[in-house]
Amino acid sequence: MVNETQQPGSASSSSRSDGGSSSGSESSKDSSRCSTPVLDADRHERLREKMRRRQDSGDKWFSLEFFPPRTANAAVNLISRFDRMGAGGPLFIDVTWHPAGDPGSDKETSSMIIANTAVNYCGLETILHMTCCNQTKDDITGHLQKAKRLGLKNVMALRGDPVGEEWEEEVDGFNYAVDLVKHIRNEFDDYFDVCVAGYPTGHPEAESYEADLKHLKEKVFAGADFIITQLFFRSETFLKFMKDCQAIGITCPIIPGIFPIQGYHSLRQLVKLSKLEVPQEIKDVIEPIKDNDAAIRNYGVELAVSMCRELLDSGVVHGLHFYTLNREVATTEVLKRLGIWKEDPRRPLPWAVSAHPKRRVEDVRPIFWASRPKSYIYRTQEWDDFPNGRWGNSSSPAFGELKDYYLFYLKSKSPREELLKMWGEELTSEESVFEVFTCYITGEPNKNGYKVTCMPWNDDPLATETNLLKEQLEKVNRRGILTINSQPNINGKPSTDPIVGWGPSGGYVFQKAYLEFFTSSEIVTALLKVLKRYELRVNYHIVNVKGQNITNAPDLQPNAVTWGIFPGREIIQPTVVDPVSFLSWKDEAFALWIEQWAKLYEEESPSRMIIQYIHDNYYLVNLVDNDFPLENCLWQVVDDTFELLN
Amino acid sequence: MVNETQQPGSASSSSRSDGGSSSGSESSKDSSRCSTPVLDADRHERLREKMRRRQDSGDKWFSLEFFPPRTANAAVNLISRFDRMGAGGPLFIDVTWHPAGDPGSDKETSSMIIANTAVNYCGLETILHMTCCNQTKDDITGHLQKAKRLGLKNVMALRGDPVGEEWEEEVDGFNYAVDLVKHIRNEFDDYFDVCVAGYPTGHPEAESYEADLKHLKEKVFAGADFIITQLFFRSETFLKFMKDCQAIGITCPIIPGIFPIQGYHSLRQLVKLSKLEVPQEIKDVIEPIKDNDAAIRNYGVELAVSMCRELLDSGVVHGLHFYTLNREVATTEVLKRLGIWKEDPRRPLPWAVSAHPKRRVEDVRPIFWASRPKSYIYRTQEWDDFPNGRWGNSSSPAFGELKDYYLFYLKSKSPREELLKMWGEELTSEESVFEVFTCYITGEPNKNGYKVTCMPWNDDPLATETNLLKEQLEKVNRRGILTINSQPNINGKPSTDPIVGWGPSGGYVFQKAYLEFFTSSEIVTALLKVLKRYELRVNYHIVNVKGQNITNAPDLQPNAVTWGIFPGREIIQPTVVDPVSFLSWKDEAFALWIEQWAKLYEEESPSRMIIQYIHDNYYLVNLVDNDFPLENCLWQVVDDTFELLN
Repeated sequence: MVNETQQPGSASSSSRSDGGSSSGSESSKDSSRCSTPVLDADRHERLREKMRRRQDSGDKWFSLEFFPPRTANAAVNLISRFDRMGAGGPLFIDVTWHPAGDPGSDKETSSMIIANTAVNYCGLETILHMTCCNQTKDDITGHLQKAKRLGLKNVMALRGDPVGEEWEEEVDGFNYAVDLVKHIRNEFDDYFDVCVAGYPTGHPEAESYEADLKHLKEKVFAGADFIITQLFFRSETFLKFMKDCQAIGITCPIIPGIFPIQGYHSLRQLVKLSKLEVPQEIKDVIEPIKDNDAAIRNYGVELAVSMCRELLDSGVVHGLHFYTLNREVATTEVLKRLGIWKEDPRRPLPWAVSAHPKRRVEDVRPIFWASRPKSYIYRTQEWDDFPNGRWGNSSSPAFGELKDYYLFYLKSKSPREELLKMWGEELTSEESVFEVFTCYITGEPNKNGYKVTCMPWNDDPLATETNLLKEQLEKVNRRGILTINSQPNINGKPSTDPIVGWGPSGGYVFQKAYLEFFTSSEIVTALLKVLKRYELRVNYHIVNVKGQNITNAPDLQPNAVTWGIFPGREIIQPTVVDPVSFLSWKDEAFALWIEQWAKLYEEESPSRMIIQYIHDNYYLVNLVDNDFPLENCLWQVVDDTFELLN
Repeated sequence: MVNETQQPGSASSSSRSDGGSSSGSESSKDSSRCSTPVLDADRHERLREKMRRRQDSGDKWFSLEFFPPRTANAAVNLISRFDRMGAGGPLFIDVTWHPAGDPGSDKETSSMIIANTAVNYCGLETILHMTCCNQTKDDITGHLQKAKRLGLKNVMALRGDPVGEEWEEEVDGFNYAVDLVKHIRNEFDDYFDVCVAGYPTGHPEAESYEADLKHLKEKVFAGADFIITQLFFRSETFLKFMKDCQAIGITCPIIPGIFPIQGYHSLRQLVKLSKLEVPQEIKDVIEPIKDNDAAIRNYGVELAVSMCRELLDSGVVHGLHFYTLNREVATTEVLKRLGIWKEDPRRPLPWAVSAHPKRRVEDVRPIFWASRPKSYIYRTQEWDDFPNGRWGNSSSPAFGELKDYYLFYLKSKSPREELLKMWGEELTSEESVFEVFTCYITGEPNKNGYKVTCMPWNDDPLATETNLLKEQLEKVNRRGILTINSQPNINGKPSTDPIVGWGPSGGYVFQKAYLEFFTSSEIVTALLKVLKRYELRVNYHIVNVKGQNITNAPDLQPNAVTWGIFPGREIIQPTVVDPVSFLSWKDEAFALWIEQWAKLYEEESPSRMIIQYIHDNYYLVNLVDNDFPLENCLWQVVDDTFELLN
C-alpha cells in the first residue's frame, strides 16, 4: 500500500496452514490450524466462488495485504507472520508489486517469490499485484506465465506509478489498469481471477468522481471479477461509493479497504502518497498524542472497529480488506474485536495443506516431514501427481535433491548466536547433546539459562499434542533416545477435538502411536532383541547415514498412522509411515545434524566432532504400535531396551 | 479324469471366495469365506510361488480336479460346488480338457468357460488342462491366447487320447506333451505356469517304467513347473516314484493324485480307462459290498485317509491333489479327517475376490452388488483399471449393459417350479409380496408350507451377519419396507471375528450401518420428512425405475461403509455407497423384479401385474448411518416414518 500510491492492494486468505508443525510433529500446533471447515469445496473452488459462497451463507470474512520485505531475514519473518495471521482464517492475502524491487525475479524478496511462498508453503489463497505502466507486453506476459507456473491463481491488475512527474499516455502501450485486465483475459482466458482497485473518493488524477466511476466500470466490463477499494476514513464514504457503483451497473463484489491507523508517521506518509485528506476530527485527536505510538494505535484500533461495525451492519458489506503494513498487532486486534478472527480454525487435514492448484487432490503424506512441511512441499514440487487416497498410488517419484535446501524458507528462523545459546557454545560429550534434546522437550532452561525453543528438525516449540507425551519423552531423551517426531495413539476422537481433531465436523479421527529418534548402535542392538518379542504389533525401520536399513515392514508397504472417518465420504488417511520415502527423509534428517548444528562450530573443534560422530554412527529409528485401541506399547519397548542394557 | 485316460489331471485352489454372498449381503456368508490369510501375497503370487511358500512354511495344502459338465444346468450346479468346495481352501482347482465337448469354445459347458468361471467369478486359482494330439499348432495357439485373455494363468500340458486304435507319430505335429510344453514356452514365454502328468507305475503305453521317467524328465526340462501324478492305490507306489524321479534329476514339486473310491462302477470305469490294476486286497473288500454305495464310499474314504496320512507323514509330500469326479462328499470328508480342510478360512476382503490377474489391485466395490458378486464381476469385466484405495480413483467407467445378464452364471440356481412355490403360485396384493420378503427374513414357511430360501436379489439364505438384524428386518418387511441388503454398524471388532471379520489377523474392522429396500411412494414421502431431522447423520439415495433421484450426498461423493485397519499397511475400505454406480445397480435391481419374478406368471395375470406395479411405482432406497460408534439409528428412522404415517 505504502509502496503504491494509486490503489490499495487487496489481500486475505482462506484455506491455510503453516510450516511450523503438523500431525505428530513435536513443534507447536497452534500455528498450523487451517481456517476452512469444508475441506473439498475449499480446496477446489476459485477465489471468486469462495467469495460468493461466503456471501450467500452470510459468513463475514476478511483479507490481509502485505508488501514484499527488503531483506532475506525480513522475508523469513514475514513468512512466519503469514503462518500466524493465516491461522486466523483470512479468505485470502495479497502481495503488492514493488517495481523498484525487481518484483518478477527469483530473489527471495521479490513480490513473485513472496506470493509463491504464501501459496505453496503457507497454503494461503493469494493475490499477486501487478502493475503495467512503463512495461512491455512481453514483460507482462512473462510475469503472468511465471505466476501461473508457480501456482498463483489471482492477479490484482493495476496501472502503477508513472515514472516521470507528469504522466503521458503511450500509444499501443499499457496506459491504464483496464489494458492489463484486457491483456490477461486475451492471453490467459479465464485462468486468473482478476481484481481491480476502486477509489471511494475518486482517483486523485481523475477528471472527476463520476469520470473515475466510469473508468472503474470499464475495468469490470473488461473482465475483472471483484474490486478492492483504496482506504477511506468514514463508512459513509464507502457506502455512497458502493451505491454509486451499483447505480451505473457495477454488480461484482466491492470490498472496502481498511487501514487501522498504527502511528503518526505511517499515517502521514500514506496520506502524502495516496493524496487523501485526513478528516479534521481525526487530526484533532492525533495531533496532541503524536509522540505516543501506543495511544495512536489504540485510537486507530477503536476507529477501525467502529467503522468496520458500521460497514458490516449496513448489510451490503460481506468482507473487509486490511492494509496491514506487514504488522500483526493492530489488524489482529481489530479482527478479534469484530469477532471474525477464527480463534480455533478447523484443520482440513492434520498437516499444512499447500494451495497450489496441482496439489488439490493431495491428501496423504509421509509422517517424517511432519515438522518440516515446507521442506516436504519444496522437495515434491516437481511431482506431476500427488497421492490421493493411498500413498502407493503415486508411482513413488523421486524426491527433490537436498542441494538447494538452504533456500531461505527452509532455514531456521533463529540466527547463529541464538542457536549457540540454545544448543551449547561448547559440547563436551554425547551426553551434552542428550541434554539439549531433553531441554527442548521439558521447556526448562539449559545449564546456561537459555530455553531451547527449536531444534534442527523442529523450528517451533513442542506441539500441544506432543505435550501429552512429555514425561515419557523427557525420560528417554535423557538416556540417549533422541526423539524428533512422535504422536500418541487415538481411538476414535471426534473430528472437532481441539488437540487432535481435523477435517469436517461429525467425523472421528484415529492414530497409531509413532516414535522417531536417533540413537546409538548399542541401543539399536538391544532394541532389535526387544522388538522380536512384539512381533507384528510394532513395525520398525532402522537406518544409518550409509543407508544400512533394518525393517520388519512387509513388502515395503506404507503403514497408515493417521486416519479419519467422516459422514458421506471415503476414508481419509493423511499420514503414513512409508519405507521408501523414509530413505529420502533419512538423508535430510542426517544432513540437518551437520548443516544446522555441526557447522555452528569451528572445523576440527571438539563440539563439531561430537556432532559429526553422532551423524556418522547413530541410527535413525521409527516405531509404530499397530494396536491403536490398546495402550501405547512403545514406551514399554524403550523401557525393555534399557532394562536389557543394564 | 474319467474323460482322459492318459494322465490324472491336476486341480485345487487357493485364494478363493464365492458368489453367494459378501459384506453386508443378506445371503449366506458361510460360502463366501476366502482361504488365504495373507491378502496381498496371495493375490499377487503365481501358483508355483504359492506352492513354494506353502512348502517352505510347512503348511500342507490340497487341490481339486473337476471335469466340464454336459448340460447348462449341471454347469450352474458345478459352479455352486466350486463356491462350496472353494470355501475349504484349495490351493487351486483344475478343469479337464474334454476334446469331445468343444473344449475351447464359448459354450457354457466348455472346459475353457468353466475354467473362466472358476477364476473370474469364483476367485479360484485354476489350471486349465489342454491336450495337443490331433490338433494344429494354430488351434493350440488360439486356445492358449484365449485362455490368457480370460485371465487363466496355468495350463496342464497333456498329450491327449489318440483318435485311432493304434496311435502313430505325426511328423512336425504335436505328438507328446513335451511338444506342447515347448510350444507354450516358445510362444508365451514365462506367462503360464505349466504342469505335466506323472505316472507312478509308468504310462501304460511306455516301453518301460524307466523310459517313462525319462519322458517325464524331458517334459520338466522343456519348462514344466510341477508334476501331478495319475492316481495310485498304495503310498509306497508314489514314494518310490518320487525317489526315482529325484534320482534322475527331477527337482520340481511332484503332487500325488488321490482318488477316493466312491462307488463300484466309477472305479471299474476308471480302471478300464487308465489301464491301472486294482490291488487284490482292495478287490477283496469291494466285491462283497458292490451293491452298497454307502459302504463302498465309507471304505474309500478310510482308504484315502490312511494313504494320505502315510504320504504326509513321509515328510516329502506337501500337497495332495484330489480327483473329485465332480462330487463333494467323499473328498470333503477325507480332507476334513486329514485336518487340511479350512473350517473357517479367512476372507481377504468382505466380498468375493476375483482371481483374474487384471483385478489384482481391486479392493473397493459398491455395496449394492454384495449379494450378486458374479453380476458385478461380469458387468465390470471390460474395465481396464480397478479401483484401488478409493472408489473415485477409477474414472467411473461405464457398467456393462444388462442385456446379457441372463447368462447362466447370473441365473437363479432354482428351477421355475421351486420359485413359484417359494414366491407364490398366485399373488393377490402388494401385501402378499411383503409376506414373501418376510418369510425369507424369518426362515418360517410361507402359507403353503414352503420355506423361502432365495430372492431375486439374494440367491442364498440369509447371511449370518444379517441374522443379527433379523427381528427388526422382519418388522419392517411386514409393513412394506422390502429389504434387499443391510449391514449392522461395527466399531472396531478384531479382524478375526468369525462373523464380521476379514483381512489379515491383528487388525480391526469397522462398518457403518446400511439398509437398502424397495418401498412405496407414500412411505418415501414420510421418510423424507423424517430424514430431515437426522441431517448429515444419515445419508440417503432414493430412486425410482425412471431414474428420479433424491439424495443428500455431498457432490456425489462415495461414502465408505466398511473399512479395516491392519498392522503395517494402509487403510483398506472395501465397500462404499457410491451415488454414481447406484444408478447402474438401480437398473439391475428393478429388472430383477421382472426377469426373475414377474415372468414366472402368465402375461396379463393378476400376479404378474402386481409385480409390474411394484416395479413401476416403488422406490429403491438406501440409508447409511454415519455415526458408527453410536447405536444404529436406521431402525429409529423407519419407526419414525411409520409413526408419521399413522
